[in-house]
Amino acid sequence: MTTSGPGPMPGVEDPRQLLHDAGTRLAERFTGHFAPETIERYLFESYAALRRTSRLTAFLPVLAETFARERLTALAQHQGSIARDVPEVLLVCEQNAGRSQMAAALIDRHAAGSVHVRSAGSQPAAEVGPEVVAVMGELGIDLADAFPKPLTDDVVRAADVVVTMGCGDACPIYPGRTYLDWDLADPAGRPLDEVRAIRDEIDARARDLVATVLAHHQEGASS
Amino acid sequence: MTTSGPGPMPGVEDPRQLLHDAGTRLAERFTGHFAPETIERYLFESYAALRRTSRLTAFLPVLAETFARERLTALAQHQGSIARDVPEVLLVCEQNAGRSQMAAALIDRHAAGSVHVRSAGSQPAAEVGPEVVAVMGELGIDLADAFPKPLTDDVVRAADVVVTMGCGDACPIYPGRTYLDWDLADPAGRPLDEVRAIRDEIDARARDLVATVLAHHQEGASS
Repeated sequence: MTTSGPGPMPGVEDPRQLLHDAGTRLAERFTGHFAPETIERYLFESYAALRRTSRLTAFLPVLAETFARERLTALAQHQGSIARDVPEVLLVCEQNAGRSQMAAALIDRHAAGSVHVRSAGSQPAAEVGPEVVAVMGELGIDLADAFPKPLTDDVVRAADVVVTMGCGDACPIYPGRTYLDWDLADPAGRPLDEVRAIRDEIDARARDLVATVLAHHQEGASS
Repeated sequence: MTTSGPGPMPGVEDPRQLLHDAGTRLAERFTGHFAPETIERYLFESYAALRRTSRLTAFLPVLAETFARERLTALAQHQGSIARDVPEVLLVCEQNAGRSQMAAALIDRHAAGSVHVRSAGSQPAAEVGPEVVAVMGELGIDLADAFPKPLTDDVVRAADVVVTMGCGDACPIYPGRTYLDWDLADPAGRPLDEVRAIRDEIDARARDLVATVLAHHQEGASS
C-alpha cells in the first residue's frame, strides 16, 4: 500500500498554508458575523467544491477564498448582519461557463452599481468558455477573473431575483424571491457568430431586467 | 415580472417544513458537537448540492438529512469529538453512480463492520446506474437507498484511505491519508456482462483492501 507519509505526495501541491492565510483574512473580514468554525468550513468546502470541477488548479486557493467570501457575504446579507443596499440578482445556468457569466457581466455593466449580481451553475464546467470570453472581450468586458461555481444555498437566500437558464429544477425555491426563466441557446462550442447573437439577446434582456428590478425596488421603497 | 409572492410557486414543493424537522433531529443528534448555525448550514447546503444534480426530487429533504448527518459525523470524527472506532475508507469516482457505489457496498460486505466506508463523486450523476443496481442485486446487495453525492471536504478529512477511480485530480490531498488510484472501466450504460466483470474486479480489490487496511490498523494499534 502506498502512503502519502507525513507530508504531501510528491508533485502534489499542499494547499494548507495558502488556505490558512486565506482563512485568516476571511476571519478578520467577518469578525462579529460568523463563528471561526463557520468561516473555516466555508473556506474548505468552497475549496473542495471548486477542486471537483475546476481546471485552474494552481489558482484554487485564491478562487476558493473569493468564492467563500462571496458566499459568506450572501449569508450575512440573508441574516441581516450585512446591509443589502441594492437589489441582488442571481443568474443560474448549467455550467456557469456561458449564459450566466455573460448575463452577470452585462447586468453589472447596465446597472452601474444599482444592482448586485452573482452567478452559479448546477453542473459547473472546468472554465468559462473561450468563445464566451472572446465575444465579451469585443464589448470591452474582461472575464479573465470569472470562474464556474456550483450553485449554493447561501446565494439563493440572498437573492431578490433568481434567473434560471436551461438548468431545469436545479435551484432551491424559497418564497419571497422572484423567479424568472430565460430560454436561451447554449453558446458552448458554437461558432462566434452564434455566440455573439446569444450575447446580444442576453444584453437586451439584461437591460430590461435592470430597469424592471430598479422600478420594483423603488416602488417597494416608497410603499 | 412574475413573482412567487409570499408563498411557494404553484406546483413547486416547499421544502421548508421537512427541512425544519430534519434540522431539529440533527440538532438533537449533534448537541455539544456543533453550533446550531453549523448544523443548519450543513443541512441547507447539502439540500442545495443534491438538488443541483439529483433526479430524486421528491425525496430530497430525506436525502439531504442523510447526507448532512454523514458529513457532520465525518467532521466530528476529524475534530475528535466522535470516536473513530474503525478505519475510514472513502471511495471517489466521477459520478458516484457506479464504481464508487459498488466498491463501497462490497467493502462494507467484506469488512462486516471492521471498516467504515463512504463514497462521493466529482460530478455526481442524477441517480445510481440501473445496470449497477441490477448486478449488485444479483449478489444480494440492495442499492435502493444509495444516491450520488458530491465530494466534500469533511469526508476527505475523516478518511484514513482515499481510493480514486477515474476522477483525475478532483480530490483534495491532505497529508496523513493513504491515497490509492484504481484503474477501472466505467460501467455507465454498458451491457450487463461487462458491468458484472467490473463488479467482480472491484470485488477482488475490495477484499484485498479490507485485508490490507485491517493489517495496517492492527499494526498501528500495536506499535
